[in-house]
Amino acid sequence: MVDIPDSHPRKNSLESRNKIVQGSRKGLLADSALIAHGRGEAFDYLLGEKTSEIANLAIKEVSARLLVAKKPVISVNGNTVILAGRNFIRIAAALGCPIEVNLYYTTPERVSGLISLLEEQRKEVVLEDFKRGENWKKKILAVDFLGLETDYKIAGLDGPRANCCKAGIGDSDTVLVPLEDGDRCEALVNELKEVLVIDLNPLSRTARMATVTIVDEVSRASEEIFKEVTKRNNIPSDWDNLVSLNESLKIISSSFLKDSNY
Amino acid sequence: MVDIPDSHPRKNSLESRNKIVQGSRKGLLADSALIAHGRGEAFDYLLGEKTSEIANLAIKEVSARLLVAKKPVISVNGNTVILAGRNFIRIAAALGCPIEVNLYYTTPERVSGLISLLEEQRKEVVLEDFKRGENWKKKILAVDFLGLETDYKIAGLDGPRANCCKAGIGDSDTVLVPLEDGDRCEALVNELKEVLVIDLNPLSRTARMATVTIVDEVSRASEEIFKEVTKRNNIPSDWDNLVSLNESLKIISSSFLKDSNY
Repeated sequence: MVDIPDSHPRKNSLESRNKIVQGSRKGLLADSALIAHGRGEAFDYLLGEKTSEIANLAIKEVSARLLVAKKPVISVNGNTVILAGRNFIRIAAALGCPIEVNLYYTTPERVSGLISLLEEQRKEVVLEDFKRGENWKKKILAVDFLGLETDYKIAGLDGPRANCCKAGIGDSDTVLVPLEDGDRCEALVNELKEVLVIDLNPLSRTARMATVTIVDEVSRASEEIFKEVTKRNNIPSDWDNLVSLNESLKIISSSFLKDSNY
Repeated sequence: MVDIPDSHPRKNSLESRNKIVQGSRKGLLADSALIAHGRGEAFDYLLGEKTSEIANLAIKEVSARLLVAKKPVISVNGNTVILAGRNFIRIAAALGCPIEVNLYYTTPERVSGLISLLEEQRKEVVLEDFKRGENWKKKILAVDFLGLETDYKIAGLDGPRANCCKAGIGDSDTVLVPLEDGDRCEALVNELKEVLVIDLNPLSRTARMATVTIVDEVSRASEEIFKEVTKRNNIPSDWDNLVSLNESLKIISSSFLKDSNY
């Protein structure tokens, strides 16, 4: 992996890119995952590679909804595990909910590879968080990693991507699903679940179908979600997702107009 | 390769994505090439996946400048060859100039793999263009594919990416270079060459450093450049590149504002 100096203005973005390239070399990602990452890079660049005010509000809303959910679940794909697996393990520990590896282009090898990576990340989290005490450690160790054996089908989807776990997505009332595809997002909404997504493209079908969309980069957003679910001081509001997406659109659009004065 | 129905509104974009994935599997691309393609996809999506009016003007300007150049050259990377190699072979035949394979992350294997791919594409062009007659066929067969043996260094660049061919980029007065990186674009401009680029991101350093920037997808733009250089009816103007980039920025920005009324 190339060493990027701390002074580089786009260090985080380049490090994320390296992680995705490494993950791809290890066979953890479908080919299209690198292309999807590139699309995300472009949108994040336009957002100034920082969490906006409206993204912060969406993060608080998502955290509030996760805390009041009866059966929340975190659905992750390869990019999510590689970029932010440890943050999602912490969020799952704080909520006492499972993490389900659920892939668009799924193979048993990739699912088990990603579950192994989550197991490694869990060990890192235990070491990093040792000051939080035994109770926290127990919660981290108790997080279930699902996805290897599917026993539930999401209604309205064809083929392998309909498959998921009953104990995970199947029985859940609320799904936190970073980087989801549009069809599946729609199918989950049709199952009357709350679908909370993290998507850098405010125009994507996923962003527009979801109950709450955080328009932000997944590792930044997940770090903030963890802080918020730990504080436990947010309550769900009447969230108008399209209004919030319009705020993100305005930020991107003004970044173009600002730069056009070069 | 997945078969995409003709009716799909984003058929071209998905076919390009498939080509890049296939090229990557064959080892013709650096890992970062897929990510770069994804960034391009995002910008093309915002441009409505069509050639804008200002891109059309830039295409005419580029064609005019190529026609009056004393020693033009076309510098190509993996994505360019995979997405639009045949178009560039035709442009080179019309101009009587060489094509140089010049890669950011270069290896002899990738350069020779891409030259082999260009040779295959040349055969396809000969077959497809048989109605254009013997003279055209001779021009197609005469196009030099350079890049395997480098004997010139671009001033102001370190490491392998400074290397190029004297008979190609080295001695040229005008370089048509789709999908270039910012540093090298700047170094070529500093060598007092005309640098004509095709770049979907109007904010990129390459786009801003170049003499003329076509903000358009490389296969669409190259098809139009070929038509223009064949017509031979454009003459170079006093091109203000930043003004033209601002036009592209406005298009993208208005695509966001339009969509925000959903």
